[in-house]
Amino acid sequence: MKYPLIVAIDETSCSKGLLSVASRVSESASGLKVGVPTLISCGLGLLRDLRASARDSLLIADLKLADIGDVMVRTASLVKDYVDAVIAHTFVGRAGALDELSESVRRWGLKLILVASMSHPGSTEFYDSAFDGVIRLVRDLEPWGVVAPATRPHVIRSIRGFLPKVKVLAPGVGAQGAEPGDAICAGADYEIVGRSILGSPDPLKALDEVGEAASRCLTSRG
Amino acid sequence: MKYPLIVAIDETSCSKGLLSVASRVSESASGLKVGVPTLISCGLGLLRDLRASARDSLLIADLKLADIGDVMVRTASLVKDYVDAVIAHTFVGRAGALDELSESVRRWGLKLILVASMSHPGSTEFYDSAFDGVIRLVRDLEPWGVVAPATRPHVIRSIRGFLPKVKVLAPGVGAQGAEPGDAICAGADYEIVGRSILGSPDPLKALDEVGEAASRCLTSRG
Repeated sequence: MKYPLIVAIDETSCSKGLLSVASRVSESASGLKVGVPTLISCGLGLLRDLRASARDSLLIADLKLADIGDVMVRTASLVKDYVDAVIAHTFVGRAGALDELSESVRRWGLKLILVASMSHPGSTEFYDSAFDGVIRLVRDLEPWGVVAPATRPHVIRSIRGFLPKVKVLAPGVGAQGAEPGDAICAGADYEIVGRSILGSPDPLKALDEVGEAASRCLTSRG
Repeated sequence: MKYPLIVAIDETSCSKGLLSVASRVSESASGLKVGVPTLISCGLGLLRDLRASARDSLLIADLKLADIGDVMVRTASLVKDYVDAVIAHTFVGRAGALDELSESVRRWGLKLILVASMSHPGSTEFYDSAFDGVIRLVRDLEPWGVVAPATRPHVIRSIRGFLPKVKVLAPGVGAQGAEPGDAICAGADYEIVGRSILGSPDPLKALDEVGEAASRCLTSRG
């Protein structure tokens, strides 16, 4: 069974090595998440190649969509043939934004993942103050998953309490300070790890270390 | 004198015609704003070509940055040699996000533009409820400009009242329903127009029509 990990790819230089590492990592990780820096650097060709080499992994375009509906739909349409899921921000609201995106994503057979809270300290300044509204919107739109911070496990517990069925993806493990396993123990489904895997001299070994810790937590949760 | 207009480019297909239209439009418009769909489709080559052909226009990468500091800085670093300004969302907060981006953007000699409110109805669900916090953050970070909706001129008036010196860029003119001139009359510095220019059979004529209306308002404001 694969580790409950999603590896974040946010590299700004596009090398053949990147595809190769990502493919190898995807053999043990549940998914790969490709961010905007990499999408702009590598173009859609990288997603096409990743799709071909990581067929049984969850492939996520982490577009952090945060625009009017028309622009979010245009952006998502570019990646729809290559990925399983796209990530958008809750705080742009429903009317004329997430309603349009959600409808298109559903029609395309993709999974929608909404940011409910973020991993950096600044997330408490606006996002977490709007928590009740975020929960209401997520309930309304019924996305496949939400993003919630490994760095603040109480937020994950709270989301898990309000939304028992949604998948919870938790960034912030490693470079941002959360310990591997913290988020899974708090109820997340996947931990998102970036720099501590791809920035390591031995990415597969780093993946195993983080993955074992996360898996132990999953087992202990039963 | 150029029209107080910024033309938004969000095309998803990358043709040579696009560069040609954008260059011609930039002779009369104050600036060009290139969005994420176009950046992913065309890559950085388009920005380089636009920079070369529209030297005296304000060139903006509308990345709608909304991530942790590290990822926003990585993304902005890709475009820093080609554009004058980048756009980021206020909603991600300061600590570990906009503080890092703001510092990098300043070091690179670029202008930072922060979204203070958006043009679609859903902006009232979260963004406008957080208005006081948005104003405080903009005051703290002192960006060159903010984005505020042409579709809700009272928000522009309010921002202008609180922040007399910041440049106000107003999207929502045309396809989204605001009349040309509405935002400038309310105190904005630039109106952002997209589909009604680039989607027109005669983009230069469409630009003249919108531009004349916006300029009249600027004149009447004195």
